[in-house]
This record gives sequence, structure tokens and C-alpha cells, in this order.
Amino acid sequence: MKKIPVAIMGATGSVGQKFIELLEDHPWFEIVALTASERSAGRAYGTVVRWMSSKPLSDKIANMIIEETRPGVAGRIAFSGLDAAVAGEAEEAFARAGYVVVSNARNHRMRPDVPLLIPEVNPDHLSLIKNQPYGRGCIVTNPNCSTVGLTIALKPLYDAFGVQAVQVVTMQALSGGGYPGVPSLDILDNVLPLIPGEEAKMETEPLKLLGAVTAEGVTPAGIKISAQCNRVAVREGHLESVAVKLTRPVPPEALIEAWEKFTAPPEVTGLPSSPSKVVRYGDDPAFPQPIMHRHSGHGMTVSIGRLQPCAVLDYRFMLLVHNTIRGAAGGAILNAELLYQKGLLDV
Amino acid sequence: MKKIPVAIMGATGSVGQKFIELLEDHPWFEIVALTASERSAGRAYGTVVRWMSSKPLSDKIANMIIEETRPGVAGRIAFSGLDAAVAGEAEEAFARAGYVVVSNARNHRMRPDVPLLIPEVNPDHLSLIKNQPYGRGCIVTNPNCSTVGLTIALKPLYDAFGVQAVQVVTMQALSGGGYPGVPSLDILDNVLPLIPGEEAKMETEPLKLLGAVTAEGVTPAGIKISAQCNRVAVREGHLESVAVKLTRPVPPEALIEAWEKFTAPPEVTGLPSSPSKVVRYGDDPAFPQPIMHRHSGHGMTVSIGRLQPCAVLDYRFMLLVHNTIRGAAGGAILNAELLYQKGLLDV
Amino acid sequence: MKKIPVAIMGATGSVGQKFIELLEDHPWFEIVALTASERSAGRAYGTVVRWMSSKPLSDKIANMIIEETRPGVAGRIAFSGLDAAVAGEAEEAFARAGYVVVSNARNHRMRPDVPLLIPEVNPDHLSLIKNQPYGRGCIVTNPNCSTVGLTIALKPLYDAFGVQAVQVVTMQALSGGGYPGVPSLDILDNVLPLIPGEEAKMETEPLKLLGAVTAEGVTPAGIKISAQCNRVAVREGHLESVAVKLTRPVPPEALIEAWEKFTAPPEVTGLPSSPSKVVRYGDDPAFPQPIMHRHSGHGMTVSIGRLQPCAVLDYRFMLLVHNTIRGAAGGAILNAELLYQKGLLDV
Amino acid sequence: MKKIPVAIMGATGSVGQKFIELLEDHPWFEIVALTASERSAGRAYGTVVRWMSSKPLSDKIANMIIEETRPGVAGRIAFSGLDAAVAGEAEEAFARAGYVVVSNARNHRMRPDVPLLIPEVNPDHLSLIKNQPYGRGCIVTNPNCSTVGLTIALKPLYDAFGVQAVQVVTMQALSGGGYPGVPSLDILDNVLPLIPGEEAKMETEPLKLLGAVTAEGVTPAGIKISAQCNRVAVREGHLESVAVKLTRPVPPEALIEAWEKFTAPPEVTGLPSSPSKVVRYGDDPAFPQPIMHRHSGHGMTVSIGRLQPCAVLDYRFMLLVHNTIRGAAGGAILNAELLYQKGLLDV
Repeated sequence: MKKIPVAIMGATGSVGQKFIELLEDHPWFEIVALTASERSAGRAYGTVVRWMSSKPLSDKIANMIIEETRPGVAGRIAFSGLDAAVAGEAEEAFARAGYVVVSNARNHRMRPDVPLLIPEVNPDHLSLIKNQPYGRGCIVTNPNCSTVGLTIALKPLYDAFGVQAVQVVTMQALSGGGYPGVPSLDILDNVLPLIPGEEAKMETEPLKLLGAVTAEGVTPAGIKISAQCNRVAVREGHLESVAVKLTRPVPPEALIEAWEKFTAPPEVTGLPSSPSKVVRYGDDPAFPQPIMHRHSGHGMTVSIGRLQPCAVLDYRFMLLVHNTIRGAAGGAILNAELLYQKGLLDV
Repeated sequence: MKKIPVAIMGATGSVGQKFIELLEDHPWFEIVALTASERSAGRAYGTVVRWMSSKPLSDKIANMIIEETRPGVAGRIAFSGLDAAVAGEAEEAFARAGYVVVSNARNHRMRPDVPLLIPEVNPDHLSLIKNQPYGRGCIVTNPNCSTVGLTIALKPLYDAFGVQAVQVVTMQALSGGGYPGVPSLDILDNVLPLIPGEEAKMETEPLKLLGAVTAEGVTPAGIKISAQCNRVAVREGHLESVAVKLTRPVPPEALIEAWEKFTAPPEVTGLPSSPSKVVRYGDDPAFPQPIMHRHSGHGMTVSIGRLQPCAVLDYRFMLLVHNTIRGAAGGAILNAELLYQKGLLDV
Repeated sequence: MKKIPVAIMGATGSVGQKFIELLEDHPWFEIVALTASERSAGRAYGTVVRWMSSKPLSDKIANMIIEETRPGVAGRIAFSGLDAAVAGEAEEAFARAGYVVVSNARNHRMRPDVPLLIPEVNPDHLSLIKNQPYGRGCIVTNPNCSTVGLTIALKPLYDAFGVQAVQVVTMQALSGGGYPGVPSLDILDNVLPLIPGEEAKMETEPLKLLGAVTAEGVTPAGIKISAQCNRVAVREGHLESVAVKLTRPVPPEALIEAWEKFTAPPEVTGLPSSPSKVVRYGDDPAFPQPIMHRHSGHGMTVSIGRLQPCAVLDYRFMLLVHNTIRGAAGGAILNAELLYQKGLLDV
Repeated sequence: MKKIPVAIMGATGSVGQKFIELLEDHPWFEIVALTASERSAGRAYGTVVRWMSSKPLSDKIANMIIEETRPGVAGRIAFSGLDAAVAGEAEEAFARAGYVVVSNARNHRMRPDVPLLIPEVNPDHLSLIKNQPYGRGCIVTNPNCSTVGLTIALKPLYDAFGVQAVQVVTMQALSGGGYPGVPSLDILDNVLPLIPGEEAKMETEPLKLLGAVTAEGVTPAGIKISAQCNRVAVREGHLESVAVKLTRPVPPEALIEAWEKFTAPPEVTGLPSSPSKVVRYGDDPAFPQPIMHRHSGHGMTVSIGRLQPCAVLDYRFMLLVHNTIRGAAGGAILNAELLYQKGLLDV
């Protein structure tokens, strides 16, 4: 099979690097272009990047010449790891120029004509693409890293029992802040009770993800969500304390069964980045933990544990999601795989 | 003034050490006895203890000979830093023998005739002592370290507006687990989603603390509390994400005013360990943080910040409490000071 | 090929767990028995172990019934992850009973008739086995975790230029202390300047490893070594600052060339656990780092960097070795592979 | 007594903040001006600074209006916490304008006419000031943070026994890198084997500090020093593994006695920031540790432990120095106190 050529926009940033790491041996996609700011353009990637993965940078990628982030670069798909400061305009320019933009940036997530996509949750939202004004191009986005885990945990409950309200408190990893990101003096022997902008994303994005798609857009789900977001001294893996109010009484076994039985739609289960289990519920009273379980399902499985009755809402539990894989580059790649599977890449 | 002689039970443990650190220069109390297990008895304290404070151990204390934890040691007050495994019986034996036992252990906290005491919150609960069967002796307890911060934050809201429900998620410091406590491999680059027994304490102790005292005991406050407790890589200072439902609608300014105006009763404000502010509300969006604010009010002030409306309950906020000072030894010492102030030491 | 049956002694400890993790998919060896203390014997491994790897425990291993650490268990090879407190006698008992004991414990390392073995460094030392009094059984040991990295770095310099003196200061990972090991309160925001017994091992074991084997034993290499050992807040990967005095003047390029050209003897290079590069020298001025490079060569490659002239001795450099793989279980498995390759297993 | 008015140059940086923290209650000095870059000038200090100390910023300082770093500000002494990028010119301009510049920056440290000063080590070097071309103004510097600890440890050995060679490996704290400084992703679960420029400073500055002052300048001490510098996950307190070669054989007790007896010259011992012990030798085998001992002598005492014979040089030991107090602001303030004591402030 001839691989689909892909460009990585913002290739030197932390999300861009994760795209490279996950795409280097991808069965369907092949990296053919790397973009960055004007300052880096024209130089070999290996001489510019501060490579942060323990998996060494390959010679092939190291020798690729960085191009400016501007339409004209090779590639049918443009994976965007751009900063929000520049992603808005650049992604539109690429879409207008006919690229399929698969973005991790927040800029276009809440647009009525842009799918905010988790393939296991709302693959039907892809139909929004036809409302986009870009012809052969389009923009598809994945949600915020802490949103993904929460929404995947809520989806089977929402479908089976209805969800009225959600209280969530996050303990988020350092890699969510990019590089250089959080200064070490701010986090060693400390917790930061603020991640600017994060709480608002967690309170709105799940409503779109769980909402019903119509010809015009998405009718948001009617769930009340309150989110408090904290940064902790963990490299990777967002841990979340969640409490939920369901629309009808159910025993705890029903929730666990809903999670365990949660499978992706058939068009998703066979995708290369689709994990064998979307959700893994663990019985151990100290499950899940970032250091132990973040790599579950190659970083694509959401780990859930400690389900207990809640005196205020109905139930509470803990969840863990790998923020740079499922919550960023891995999630975006799964989105692109779904686009290909459904014939939307037009190649 | 002649100082009140005090013994420290369980003097080699982490709470015992904190008692020593805080009592060495105390204006009212003087350490006259140190107790530990049979194994350590008869040896000089300095040769047995693994001293953990950065404030060096004084020669006077280092040279004191440890005694077995048994009535007969010198002292009018017996401060108990004993482990729950032995505290139950030992504290009763001391009370029967006529000591005023001021305990940090959990064993007797929920007994109907034992005050669970925070002087700024429920000084009137001291009247329970007269129901105790110990004659000249008695037992007074302070609450769990994470309970203290929560209850102090709730008290002015409870009095002014009523509180119906509380959701709290904690991020607790390592020192709360004692020494050796949490293994480093369990917490470096990790969060532990389990602190055995902690959630139950947080869900019950505040109800007694905020309850009404009667001749027979305490009628618990009618608040629904749900607590999820996590351990994070912080040395000292428990951070808590809290959401509350009040009994009537109030603007956010009213909550802040309630906290800022919260003062201890007159008999408490002048006590040596009483902080100038019981609660400090901070406007900075990243307030409070363990590394910056745990020592506020010499570790006795509870720091509160990030008050925001909550989509599920009414309001949410963050609080920070120094777990080994306000939440353990410091709180117990303040209890003893109140006993002395009210003439209950009978000396 | 029929696999060689192997037992793991001390299977519940941290080294024992690493043996299991590394041996589960081994092409030559198959785990057929797990031993632990009397207390655990008779119970399923999965119900006893506190499994610490992020790679989940397989059902096959989880269901194996633990046996007491006593000869009679199945297996031709007995890998020993026993504590030094019990390893001495137990390993002798197994050797006398005819097992090939491949041990990570320190007890027998310095015995004249026991090979202290790094296959790339001194495979000829295996000839010592014939001096052992055990008939079909024998004992082979691998060195201390911090010794391995140092000795591998010294070997090509010793052969090419001679080494007179070595100053080494280590910054060692927490996993070297086992589990529960170092308490978190001892290491968060701290460095421990003491690892009991470690400095002596680093000053003697390399001399045996680099020594010449004779019919009677090993003539230690004539190198003066001074070691200072510190514990730092790192999970895995020992970093070492080294200074060396050579026997003759050589330019820095010669050292780098010696490292880069360093290859294992032919009988070692094809072994399953043999890394493609024994040593990797990196030019980056901040190379090597535990988080980035400890997994180099699946944890079996020693990373070296920052070679500079030294004003006191001749040269100084940094090295990094994965302490639980190359420095413990992985090193022992490579030893066993060499035994098999040379026909010494007699199977 | 009327206090000496002092300005703090670079007051918003991490060293500048430490100057403020240490000078607020100083018996001799009073802060009358704060300078920073043009961008901050004209604004109240409290609205600009990202205050990092757990000791709260006072209202007095918070309300002071920042001035540009240019001569003309109030103050007899100008304490410089400026970055090296700007310190060179700015400090000269202030000296020319008649200020006594007491600097922590590295720019002028090695100038023949500038004292590089540790009052307990080389107070006579102050005589170099008269060679400076500034009239009433002058520049006095303190050494690099890791140099200070090493030099104080060497001084009594150098005087009593002579020192020929020194091997030092440092494990340095994060605060040495300023703020934001080291990114958290670079240090959590890691050690950085590189601190740019640090090794060169440690190999040259002690030679000037221990050198003999003459009319023209300083004849450097004839010691060979080799330094390897590492950054570890510690907030404050540089730990150093040191090996020394003396000029004549001495027993270990002699070194300990030299350290214990080491006292500052009479003109230094009474200074407000002078610690009661310049050096503290500890017998505990795990002494010194950053978390326990960095605050010794209010951060001004150097802690030494683990003296042992060294197989390569003569002896080895560990030392700990508080890098932002003794190694930066505190050391500079002690320098200023000595200037005042000797009548060199001309006030």
C-alpha cells in the first residue's frame, strides 16, 4: 500500500514531537514535511529541535529540512501541533488550500461546522465537515487532554443511564504545559491550583462531544459540569477525581459493566491506533496511578477505578488518561485514521 | 509563671517530634517526660530518635531518658502522638490515672463523651469532658489533618448561610503518612489515589465538629459530605478542592467576607498558638500553594483562594492547611492552651 | 527449540520482579518455578506480589504457586534475586543440589572460585566454575549496579591505555534500594549522601572484574579507586561522575574511539540480551541523562558523555547505567545466556 | 543609629528578591531604592514581582516604585542581583557615580583590582579597592554559589596543611538557576549533567580567594582543581563530593579539628550576618543533607561530613552550602557589613 503523505505543523514543539514519535512507523501515514516558525525554516530538524523523547530521533527525520508553516508543503494531511497563538489562522489557510487539517489546537474546536472528535464517542460528528467552506480541505479537532479522559469515562454512562451533573477535580501532568512549560521551582514540593483556561474547556467540550449532531451543528448535551484543575509533579498522565449524578438509580455493578463493555463502533475498532480496550476498570483500591497505568493500551486506554457511592451526587471514581498520547497526538492520529477509513481523505 | 509540666507520648514518631519542636520554647508548657515503646525506654532520646526537623534537636531534649508509655511519668498534660494501634488503651490508662490527655490519635475522636476540638470552631464542646469517667483526668482530641482545614473553611459559611452539601478532593502531603511512610517509588512521578481510612474520617468528623453540643453529647450537623483523598509529592501542606451547596443564595463577596471576618472566640484569640488570622483569603488566581503558604500564621492559618461559582453545587474554592502543625501537633497544643485558659487543668 | 527451565529465587522482591518481566518472552529460557519466603509459599504469585512494573503481570505468572526457597523446585537455572541476608546459604544449597545459580546478590561475588561476570568484560572468568565444589551445580554472579557501568566504561581504556586511578561520584536511582526502600520524606527536595556498603563494593569489584584469571583465581587489577555514593530523586538509572588517570598520555579522541569500538567477544555479541552497542558515547554537552538515555539498548547499553581533560587526574567524563536492567536482572540474564552458549548448562 | 541607605539592583530577579528578604529587618541597612529593567520602572514593586519566598512581601516594599537601573537612585550601597548580561556595564556606571557596589554577578569577579570576597577567608583582599579607578565608589564581589562552600571548606585545610589538588563533583539546587530557570520536565526523575559555565568558575575562583594579595593584585593559590557540576531536584542547598590532596600527611582528626576551630577574623565575627559557626562538621554517616541542614547558621554555615581516606588523593568528604543565602545574597550582605565595619563606606 502506498502511504498517505502527511505534514506536521509545529513540528518542533512538544505535541509536534509526539506526532513524529507516533507516526514514524505508522502503517498508513508517512511524514513528508515538517513545519515550524520562520526562524527555524531552512534548517535540518535535528539541528533545531530539543528532542525530548527517550526514543531516539531517527536520521531520516533529523535530516529533514524544516519549512515555514504555510500552505505549499507536501502532504495530504496536515497534523497540527501549533500553539493556539498561531493555530487559528494557519489551520484555516491550510484547509482553504485543500489540506485535511487534523488539529490538536483549541482554536476551532467549538465552531459549529468543525467536528470535535473522539472516534469511540462521536464518529457521526464527522458529518459536520460538509458544512465547512473549504472544498477539498477540512478541519477536524480533538479535545483538550483532560477532557478526553472524562468524556470517554462518561460516554457509556451517558448512553446507558443518562448523566445530569459532573464534579471533576484534576491532577494534571507537567507535559500538558509543553516545553519549557512549568518551571521546576513552581512544582517541586508543590501543587499549582491553576491551569489557565483549562476549567472552561473541561466544562464545555464534553457537552459538544456528547451532543447530538444535526444538519446545522451539534446540540450540546444537557449536563452540568464543574471542573477544578491542578498541576502536580507528574511527567505524564492526568488523574481525575470525578463525581456524577445519573438520571436514574443504578447499582455500581451496572456502571462497571457499562465501562467494561464499552467498545468503539466497528469502523473504529480496527484502526491502527485504536486500543483493544477503550476503558479498563481496575479493582485494586489504589488503581489507577500515573506511573503504573498511563501506558495502558499504548497510552490510548482510559483507566478507571475506585468507584464508590457519593453522598452528594450518586457515584464517584478516579480516572487516568495519558495526556500526550490519548489526550493529544495519539488522539489526533486516531482521528486521521477514521477519516481515511471513511474515505474522507479523497486520495 | 511556673510552667505546666507536660509529657509527650510516642515522642519518637513524627507527630511526637513535632510536639517537641513546637513545645520547646512554649510560654506555658514545659516538657518533663518523653515516652515511647518498651524497646526505646531507658535510652537517651537523642540516641534513639531519627530527628527529622531542620531545627536541630536541643541538648536538653536529646539527653532526656525515654520512659515506657505507661502512667507514672511526670506531667499534668500528656500529649499523645501515639499510633492508633496503641493509642486507644494507652490514652484511657493515662486518663484514668488522672492525666489530661490531649491526643492527635483517631481512636477516641468519635466517642460521645470526648470533645473533638478546634478551639476556633467548637470550644463549647469542652463541656463533654464532664461526662467522662476519669475524675481528674480526661481525653480531648483534635481532628484528622485534612478535616481541620475543611472544617475551619466551612465554619463561617455554616454559621452565616448554612451548608447542605460538600464535595472535597484532597491532594495530601507525604508527612501525613508518618515516617517511613510513603515509599519514594510510590510517589516520584506519581499520585496515589488512595489514603486508607481517610475519606471516612473527612466525611464524619466535620459533622461532629460543626454539631450542637448537648448534655449527652453532640448532635451532628446535617451536611452531606463526599471526600476523595489523594497523596501527592509534597512534603507538608494538604491542598483541597472543595465545592459547597449552601442553604440559601448568597453572592461570592459574602463568602469572602465571612472568611475574612472569621475570628476565634475571645477566650481563644489570646492563646499562644492562636494565629492572628484563622483564615486568610487570597485574591491571586494561583493561591494557595503548599510551598508558598503552608507556613502562614506559623502553620496555624488556613489559606483559601479561587472562589468561583460552581455549576453543580453553589461555589467551589481551594484551601490549604499545614498538616503537621494546624492538622496535628499545633492543633493539639492549641487545644491544651484552651484547657488551661478555661481552668480545666486544675493546677 | 525446547526452552531451558528456570526458577526465580526471591521472586516477589524488586529484582525478582525484574527477572520475571525480562524472562517472560525470552527465546531460550522459560520460567517454571517461583520461590519466596515461607510466609508466601503455597499462594498464587499474583495474590502475593506488589507488582511494580508498568508492564502488566501475565495471567500465567500470576497463577503460579510460590514455593519455598529450597532445592527441589523445578528448573535447571536458578536466578537469584534474594536479599543478601538469606542469599549466602540458599544459593550454596541450590548449587550443591546441582542448580546453576545465576545470582545478583553480593554474598559470593568476591569468592576466589566464583566468577564475578560481565560477559563483555571478562567472559574468560567463567573458567573459575571448575574450582567450585558443587559438581553439576555452580554459582555465577554479576556485580553491583553502580559497578557495572563503571567497569564497562573502564574496560576499553584499561585494555588500550592502562588505568592507574579512578575517582567516581555516583548519583544513584531509588530503585537500587529495592521496595519499599528509600522513604519519600528522605528524598523529595533532598539528596542522601550515604548508601550503606556501596562505596566498598565500587572500590573492590572492578578490580576483580578487570583482573587476570589464573588456575587458582583472579589477580586483581592494580587500579586505585575512590568512590563516593549518593542517592538522588530518580526512579531508574545511575549517573556517575568519573575521573581517570591513565598509564600513558593519549588524546581525548583516542578514548572516544576506544569506547565506540568496544565490542563484546564473538560468543557474546549474538546473545539475546546483548545490546548492539555496549557503550554509546554522546556529543551533546548535556549527555547522558537518566530520563532520556537509561533505556538505551533496552537498558543494556552504557551511555558516556562530557569527556574533558581533568586538571587533577587525566580525564573526566559522565556515565549512565540502567541499574535494574544492566545493573541487576538484565546483567544476570546475559550471564546465563553466556553459560548456555558455552555449553556450561549441560542440558 | 541611622541606617545606611541601600539600593537593590535587579530587585525583581531571584537574587534581588533574596536581598529584599534578608535586608528587610537588617540592623544596619535600609532599603531605599529598587531597580529593574526599563519595562518595570515606574510601577509598584508588588505589582511587578513574582514573589517567591514563603515569607510574605511587606507592604512597605510592595508599594515602592521601581526605578530604572541607572545611577541617580538613592542609596550609599548598591547591592547587585543583576544578570551577567547587564551587570558588567551597570555596575561600573554605579561605581563611577560613587556607589559602593556589592555584587553577586560574575562579571568583575576576576578583575585584578576587584576583591572576590568571603569575609572569613580573605578579608585582606579588600585592600584591592584602592586600585579601582572609581574615587568614592567601588566594586566588591562574592563568588559563585558552589565556589563559596568549597572555598570555605578548603581554607582551614589550606592554611594548616597545604592543599595540592581538589576533585569536586556537585549536586546543585534548582534555585541556583534563577526563575523560571530549569524546566520541570528537565529535572523530575532526572539529573542534568551540565550547568553551563559552572565548572570553569569552580576551577578558578577558589584560586583567587585563597591567593595572596599584593599591591598589584592577587597571586592565585597553586592548587589544581577539577570540577564536575550536576543539577538535581532540590530547591535549595548545593551538595558537593570533594576529594583533596594535601601537601603533607595528616590524620583525619586533624582535618576535623581544623574545621571545627575555623573562626572568622575578629572584625568579622561580630557582623550581623556572621554565623556562630563558619563550618559545622557532623558525625552522622548521612550528614549533610539539603533538606535537613541547609538552614544551618541561618543559611550561612557550611556543613561538612563523611570525611574518609581517599585511595586516589588523600581524603574525601561531603559539604553542603545554602546557595541563595551563603552562596549569593547572604554572602554579599556579609561583604557589605565588613565594608561598613572597616569604615570603607565613608558615611
